[in-house]
Amino acid sequence: MSNKFDIAILGGGPAGYVAAERAGAKGMRVILFDKRALGGVCLNEGCIPTKTLLNSAKVLENAKEASKYGIQLEGSIMADFGKIMKRKDKVVRKLVAGVKAKMKHAKAEVVMAEAVVKEKRGDVITLVADGNEYQATRLLVCSGSEAAVPPIPGLDSSNVLTNREILQLKTLPQSLVIIGGGVIGSEFADFFNAMGTKVTVIEMLPEILTGVDEDIAAFVRKEFTQRGIDYHLNAKVTELKGKEVFFEKDGKLQSITGDEVLLSVGRRPNVAGIGLENIGVEFTPKGIKIDGNCRTNIPNIYAAGDVTGFSLLAHTASREAEVAVNHMLGRKDVMRYQAIPGVVYTHPEIAGVGLTESAAKAKGIEVETRQLPMAYAGRFLAENEGKDGFCKVIVGKKYKEILGIHMVGGACSEMIWGACALIEAQFRVQDVEEVVFPHPTVSEIIKETIFQF
Amino acid sequence: MSNKFDIAILGGGPAGYVAAERAGAKGMRVILFDKRALGGVCLNEGCIPTKTLLNSAKVLENAKEASKYGIQLEGSIMADFGKIMKRKDKVVRKLVAGVKAKMKHAKAEVVMAEAVVKEKRGDVITLVADGNEYQATRLLVCSGSEAAVPPIPGLDSSNVLTNREILQLKTLPQSLVIIGGGVIGSEFADFFNAMGTKVTVIEMLPEILTGVDEDIAAFVRKEFTQRGIDYHLNAKVTELKGKEVFFEKDGKLQSITGDEVLLSVGRRPNVAGIGLENIGVEFTPKGIKIDGNCRTNIPNIYAAGDVTGFSLLAHTASREAEVAVNHMLGRKDVMRYQAIPGVVYTHPEIAGVGLTESAAKAKGIEVETRQLPMAYAGRFLAENEGKDGFCKVIVGKKYKEILGIHMVGGACSEMIWGACALIEAQFRVQDVEEVVFPHPTVSEIIKETIFQF
Repeated sequence: MSNKFDIAILGGGPAGYVAAERAGAKGMRVILFDKRALGGVCLNEGCIPTKTLLNSAKVLENAKEASKYGIQLEGSIMADFGKIMKRKDKVVRKLVAGVKAKMKHAKAEVVMAEAVVKEKRGDVITLVADGNEYQATRLLVCSGSEAAVPPIPGLDSSNVLTNREILQLKTLPQSLVIIGGGVIGSEFADFFNAMGTKVTVIEMLPEILTGVDEDIAAFVRKEFTQRGIDYHLNAKVTELKGKEVFFEKDGKLQSITGDEVLLSVGRRPNVAGIGLENIGVEFTPKGIKIDGNCRTNIPNIYAAGDVTGFSLLAHTASREAEVAVNHMLGRKDVMRYQAIPGVVYTHPEIAGVGLTESAAKAKGIEVETRQLPMAYAGRFLAENEGKDGFCKVIVGKKYKEILGIHMVGGACSEMIWGACALIEAQFRVQDVEEVVFPHPTVSEIIKETIFQF
Repeated sequence: MSNKFDIAILGGGPAGYVAAERAGAKGMRVILFDKRALGGVCLNEGCIPTKTLLNSAKVLENAKEASKYGIQLEGSIMADFGKIMKRKDKVVRKLVAGVKAKMKHAKAEVVMAEAVVKEKRGDVITLVADGNEYQATRLLVCSGSEAAVPPIPGLDSSNVLTNREILQLKTLPQSLVIIGGGVIGSEFADFFNAMGTKVTVIEMLPEILTGVDEDIAAFVRKEFTQRGIDYHLNAKVTELKGKEVFFEKDGKLQSITGDEVLLSVGRRPNVAGIGLENIGVEFTPKGIKIDGNCRTNIPNIYAAGDVTGFSLLAHTASREAEVAVNHMLGRKDVMRYQAIPGVVYTHPEIAGVGLTESAAKAKGIEVETRQLPMAYAGRFLAENEGKDGFCKVIVGKKYKEILGIHMVGGACSEMIWGACALIEAQFRVQDVEEVVFPHPTVSEIIKETIFQF
């Protein structure tokens, strides 16, 4: 009986550990399995390490620009790559320890081993890990995702890095070729370029940062180009020979060689090898199918996070996990995807939530758009000498309800959560006009943009 | 007829210029008078110049701490006071030009002269400025405030500076005595201490930063004390002899001398000399009395901002101005004060909105409170090595509606606007739990604190 739990959680990432926390807080007996490291990709190989590195890049950039603000640095300014990487490891260790402490606080049993679902008899699901059997009456599958590795001739683990390996580099590469200019590719491009690496990005589509507002993506690409990053857009990688990357652009074959090659062309859900087929959970290579309560087709079996193949964002994963746990406990809750923010931690920062103009167009939703430069906000001018950015707001044509807010520049990553609340609470233009924004802050740009309607 | 307007605005600060902008956008014929400088105290002698200076202090601090993040600065790091002050002037000039442009865009006539209300006949109000008469059918009084100068023996303009004069200093004082540890006093204390000035703060009350959550005020004072600022609390200034400030503490008389003395003990509304008595507008030395629509006792005469003596914050002023203009235009709008944010731009930053614990207690409102350290948010750890801060949330005991959110640390000034929206929209704990906050951001601390209920 000691191996019987109210909930078994497969995977200890942002879905799994949040589920354990919330379920534990409600008195559920929790067991959580993770085969690699608590915190998942996000904490160990994604969000947290990259943000720590990008912060060092920001400190470097700020030091280089200090004289603009009357602060004179007389000697040399140098980035110590080894020290930066070590600090990143330290931050990750600290946060992994934090997740462990949360698991303890939630009285969750944590098993650091690969777990496989063996069977489901009546309400009881049996999992096997390290030769031991565990039983639970509910299961949350949040086994995450892995970097996608497309079938490009010559491409294998000997000549490309993914987000995992690049975070373990011991020395700074002199040159880096990045295949894929999405969020991961762009954040690494920014960091390595700041460190002094010659960075080239090869992107298949006409623009980087798919999903981000197109004007913002173009703005950032232009800024990055000025800082020395080379871009090849509409370029399809055809082959690798060692670290020489061949790509076709405008019908011509070109190649470029890097000291290192980073592959960042998307992620694949981890649906294989965890025994989903043993209990009849429906899934495809694109992920586990879930409903609005994050339930799979099998009663008492839920899925959350990257394994659903849907959003691939840590905060979506956590929220789905919360919805799943709430549903298990009979608390009314449903997953809504219209107010999921997206943040890119480059410099300048990008943050957005809700519909973009092009998404509205594709869906046939009639919208109106307004845009203002960040410099319209006094504080932005005070703190961002010679810099730029903008805010774009999208509302429904008829009711003027806020449908999307997209920004680039300033601390917009920390400003966007309020926009999520606005969309969740169905604020209209007039409602936002009545909210008092603190002056002087960059956040006022949101209110000012909304006043343009 | 060319001197007849739909609205006359007395004062070009955050109330006046916003009123002109909004009224102009609605097609009103606007005239605005200002005797000193467009943008008012906020733009010229308050928010904007101090934020620009504090940004230079932040750049200095960041440079000094760069090695924590793996960025090595080999030579000396020096603050160039003259250059910092010049940059501040440049930012102010740019923003004043921005306000001018806004006035032009609003087709508002701007008269840079002292205006006095002469009379009101029927609907028509007559003002005199520079010997010319102007007529309008509505009047918005937003003449602002001046630094209060209490009747302390020996205190006069020869030996103390206010926020106005201290911003014009040409050389860095070696020592600075600050009378009054409120927001203005604390921001200047932080800036001059960062520049290398020996700063001493004399505060009459038991704690600095009246109105700010007491735990946060104590936290910042402790931090500032560690950085070398001296505090004398419960200390009443009794006399000045030149730049020697005498104060009584614990029944003992002490004194301290500064190269400069800053007086920051509050502000007084500018109600005199503008002809309010000529048209019977009710006011006291504490300000003009207004109702929820920002109307005075006289029809079609409104007041907004510091001159009402109520909130003394730029964003309150702007919002009151909007309410006044909306009411003039027959649009339903009312001033609500329960969600006015307060920000202190020290390092660490302070931001809060809604009830504090002590305010709830004083009002007899039953509340519950939760608090979490900022380091609970992964991004705070990644970007704030060795630093601290916390978030405190206050909800109603019965309905768990959000009544107050108070923070210290991180970019909380840019995070707080969302908290204003939550309070405006009457979010309860459960509603916030359902908002998706981007990960990893410091803003997640708000959600996590709310999950503690």
